[in-house]
Amino acid sequence: VVDPSQLGDILARIHRDLAPLTAKGKPATYIPELAKVDPSRFGIAVALIDGTVHTVGDAAEPFSIQSISKIFGLTLALGRVGEGLWARVGREPSGSRFNSIVQLEQEHGRPRNPFINAGAIVVTDVIAEGHEPRETLGELVTFVRFLSGAADIVIDSAVAASEKSTGHANFALAHFLKAHGNLTGAPERVLGVYFHQCALAMSCAQLARAGLFLASAGRNPVTRYTIVSPLRARRINALMMSCGLYDASGDFAFRVGLPAKSGVGGGILAIVPGVGTIAVWSPGLDATGSSLVGTLALEQLAAAMNWSVFSG
Amino acid sequence: VVDPSQLGDILARIHRDLAPLTAKGKPATYIPELAKVDPSRFGIAVALIDGTVHTVGDAAEPFSIQSISKIFGLTLALGRVGEGLWARVGREPSGSRFNSIVQLEQEHGRPRNPFINAGAIVVTDVIAEGHEPRETLGELVTFVRFLSGAADIVIDSAVAASEKSTGHANFALAHFLKAHGNLTGAPERVLGVYFHQCALAMSCAQLARAGLFLASAGRNPVTRYTIVSPLRARRINALMMSCGLYDASGDFAFRVGLPAKSGVGGGILAIVPGVGTIAVWSPGLDATGSSLVGTLALEQLAAAMNWSVFSG
Amino acid sequence: VVDPSQLGDILARIHRDLAPLTAKGKPATYIPELAKVDPSRFGIAVALIDGTVHTVGDAAEPFSIQSISKIFGLTLALGRVGEGLWARVGREPSGSRFNSIVQLEQEHGRPRNPFINAGAIVVTDVIAEGHEPRETLGELVTFVRFLSGAADIVIDSAVAASEKSTGHANFALAHFLKAHGNLTGAPERVLGVYFHQCALAMSCAQLARAGLFLASAGRNPVTRYTIVSPLRARRINALMMSCGLYDASGDFAFRVGLPAKSGVGGGILAIVPGVGTIAVWSPGLDATGSSLVGTLALEQLAAAMNWSVFSG
Amino acid sequence: VVDPSQLGDILARIHRDLAPLTAKGKPATYIPELAKVDPSRFGIAVALIDGTVHTVGDAAEPFSIQSISKIFGLTLALGRVGEGLWARVGREPSGSRFNSIVQLEQEHGRPRNPFINAGAIVVTDVIAEGHEPRETLGELVTFVRFLSGAADIVIDSAVAASEKSTGHANFALAHFLKAHGNLTGAPERVLGVYFHQCALAMSCAQLARAGLFLASAGRNPVTRYTIVSPLRARRINALMMSCGLYDASGDFAFRVGLPAKSGVGGGILAIVPGVGTIAVWSPGLDATGSSLVGTLALEQLAAAMNWSVFSG
Repeated sequence: VVDPSQLGDILARIHRDLAPLTAKGKPATYIPELAKVDPSRFGIAVALIDGTVHTVGDAAEPFSIQSISKIFGLTLALGRVGEGLWARVGREPSGSRFNSIVQLEQEHGRPRNPFINAGAIVVTDVIAEGHEPRETLGELVTFVRFLSGAADIVIDSAVAASEKSTGHANFALAHFLKAHGNLTGAPERVLGVYFHQCALAMSCAQLARAGLFLASAGRNPVTRYTIVSPLRARRINALMMSCGLYDASGDFAFRVGLPAKSGVGGGILAIVPGVGTIAVWSPGLDATGSSLVGTLALEQLAAAMNWSVFSG
Repeated sequence: VVDPSQLGDILARIHRDLAPLTAKGKPATYIPELAKVDPSRFGIAVALIDGTVHTVGDAAEPFSIQSISKIFGLTLALGRVGEGLWARVGREPSGSRFNSIVQLEQEHGRPRNPFINAGAIVVTDVIAEGHEPRETLGELVTFVRFLSGAADIVIDSAVAASEKSTGHANFALAHFLKAHGNLTGAPERVLGVYFHQCALAMSCAQLARAGLFLASAGRNPVTRYTIVSPLRARRINALMMSCGLYDASGDFAFRVGLPAKSGVGGGILAIVPGVGTIAVWSPGLDATGSSLVGTLALEQLAAAMNWSVFSG
Repeated sequence: VVDPSQLGDILARIHRDLAPLTAKGKPATYIPELAKVDPSRFGIAVALIDGTVHTVGDAAEPFSIQSISKIFGLTLALGRVGEGLWARVGREPSGSRFNSIVQLEQEHGRPRNPFINAGAIVVTDVIAEGHEPRETLGELVTFVRFLSGAADIVIDSAVAASEKSTGHANFALAHFLKAHGNLTGAPERVLGVYFHQCALAMSCAQLARAGLFLASAGRNPVTRYTIVSPLRARRINALMMSCGLYDASGDFAFRVGLPAKSGVGGGILAIVPGVGTIAVWSPGLDATGSSLVGTLALEQLAAAMNWSVFSG
Repeated sequence: VVDPSQLGDILARIHRDLAPLTAKGKPATYIPELAKVDPSRFGIAVALIDGTVHTVGDAAEPFSIQSISKIFGLTLALGRVGEGLWARVGREPSGSRFNSIVQLEQEHGRPRNPFINAGAIVVTDVIAEGHEPRETLGELVTFVRFLSGAADIVIDSAVAASEKSTGHANFALAHFLKAHGNLTGAPERVLGVYFHQCALAMSCAQLARAGLFLASAGRNPVTRYTIVSPLRARRINALMMSCGLYDASGDFAFRVGLPAKSGVGGGILAIVPGVGTIAVWSPGLDATGSSLVGTLALEQLAAAMNWSVFSG
């Protein structure tokens, strides 16, 4: 493993080299509010388990974390129902697009994993059950603030509204889950929570800090609070490795070698077990729906620091 | 990480606890020769990068490594054509059975990854091209002998013949690949090599040693020979993590957290990057076609030694 | 072709022979209101193009025609947009269940044909566009009254409400169509019309009369009104033959040999081109979702009268 | 129905109008021998049940009937094993390409119908069982000679050889069937018969005569020999209607309205129950693999003569 003192230089070099490529990706357009974001924004934050945070570029600017929020939703749901969650959601990569409904029909309404949309909707159903939507969202915001130590994290309600107005594919998934008996709440109610969860706005620095418990056996190394057991942290990392980038997860493991979760807002959060976390943001997406420059930045950073979990 | 001096005790305990469960798995019956193996056989070997090998049970008895051989075939093929291999084979988990032909049609003859049967047949085609079958098989045997330091490793020709006589699903795959222009050799010729490759007979101890280069940045830590570059070792590990247990890879990552490759003969080879390798053998399979007791043994050993790549 | 004077005797015999089998089918239970219907009800009506109607059993009792209404919706939609309809809906059998969403994803939101649920929802969208739901339903009721000469046909609003409360699979389809840009109206609005259309209550005698224009080159042979052109009548019959019984259409063509459309309420309307129509009703369904006894009755009647379109 | 005396004029007009379009289709290229055929050839033959045959264009020139031969194979197989055949082959349209293997896997080796390649290979297996290939082929040639009254019909062995050398997709299907226990003979042996059956060379006039029994309740109206029962003739027609043009069967029913079977050599045989048969030949194919001009000719002829089975 490379000496962390070189991290600053390496981050600066990667940012300088890749910034010109931000124009090559295509920002998501299906959520109108996301399409307004400046595609040249590009930030990286690395949080190490010693508590230090190293940043470059637009690492302090909040962006829509979208599907990265599924990590936090999953953590809360596991806290609520434990391993019983797996009766309703699988743990296998889907081999399909994030919003595919094909497998859901073939597998009778049990989503392949908690990171494809259908699975994340079931996870949201779990944390929303028995609560008013605003209570659930309050709990979620409190949780990410607690994890990241940032009291100003909020949900961008314009993004949530934008998503709701065009979210017919997700409505289809929710009704399909309901038809198969795998949704407790009413579809529009569960999706209301889901769309707001996805609209969480966080900066790279905040995200990197929020994910640190996964790099540190379930305990926030800064606050010393235990978030989850070491076993659960390990398992969440495993799910991110297998399924975090949808049908590009295998390729990402091959190229980067770290557990990670991407969002259609252009963010990616990656975990380096025992070392720290990396959060990147660049709105332009590649053909698989993950940040084009963000993926390249993670690939270069992991290689430069020799941070792959697969290294000997 | 747990002190390696405890390894012997831990192995003994796991073997004692799990031996009664060997009756629960079902040995493969579709290859008649494999169905003859005593289902109560059970061995474990751990090879550490310090060169020591720790064993328990039937760890010295050769068994049919079957699909575990795909690791060695892949290593040779990458040595021959480099990253160009990926033009013909993908790097994504398939989400389907090991011998599924559905995706192959939908994706126009490009197998999802090199570990499902279709992908491994393409890999075999690469190493067989321009050579007589016996030359290719000679190269393969020489390679695994070199990796494991065991001069007596041979191909069990009764198993190879048994497989050929019932291998219609693989013939279907090979002809399908040929129909899509993704097979250079004649199907029966490539499959001849493939069936013999799968019929390699190795013991747990030999397998564990043979895989050590993947735990050690591509270099055999005992002989000091470099087998592949650190980058390639990392990538092969990543592929094993994503795709090594077919449509149970996600679950295996969740439970065990190590790159691994299973074979229908009941063996599994797992890699602990930077630490060593584990080879287990128990012929009874679970519903997904991997060793039932072998998987449990790996799960317990990885947990006891805290060997998951996802640990902080 | 058999002498029509024998029709009465043949109908009586078939009814007598099959009545004991009504207990073998299973009434639909997913629409609660339909589950209340007495499963022993069984009626047959034959309308000949000479204007005579021959009945046996419960042929005068209204039942929920459900998907049989798709014939009338399709006729109205073709009247409104003509052959342009086929830009939005295909004309091929789907080979899948009536409510499958798999093909809809694979074929980017264009339903395979107008008789599977997804296709019928698009057809409803066509006739509903630019109108208030009650106007569209008024037009539909007026149309079937006009076709059948029965002024008392109504929509059973209890059935419509029952369907709405459990129709999550249809909501999934409608939102999916919307997500793919193949639905003009709001999903809940189009489905409101769709559920009410399916809740039309008609008797066998009324249904048989209403379908007569399809047996008579597009013209009602009783009233002499032209409903559609001969070409269009022929084509609607072709679609019923290919797709009218979902994934059992091929088997129905094989056994009965007549264009037909079934409904989950247990009704089936079959067309004998140049001769007349047959409407049967028996609530118990077979595994494919069509009336079990109704299918047998049609098979026996078509054989006895030599009414297959495939006879020489 | 239009007066048959006009048939000659109508045929001449259709041939004249459509001949310029023969350049628009694309002859099959995957069987090298077929690619050599002059794409401007175009013939039509109509055989009426009164024994007259009306022709235009290249109606006397033999061409490779390819999949049209599946009608004759099916008739022989039903004669041998009766309705028991349906235990091994379904009766539903597949909704997929003629050589798709996807459904075969999903449905565990039971082909959807006897006209897709997989189904026809099972049918060939039935007629080949217990015989030497040359005996089976001898029986087949004798049968089509008997049906058409043409003693000079032969198998084009250059075409059969050409097909064998490139028939990997069919080898894949046959091995897949074998793997699922739905093939009695060895794949290469059954395919040997299958490729030769497909290589039958017949003219439009011969084909039209050979199919007459299907238009005439199972009895050859010229020779008065009964080939099959009226019920079986009706059922074979139903299968042709549902499945004869693969995944374009619904569209063909919609446009033409007659039971028909196409071949990749550019021929199509259509049945007009009670009236006669039509054989067309034009080598250029449309996107679905059926003769482009042949389909248009059938559509125009059926419309001009009002020959749809769906007409009132």
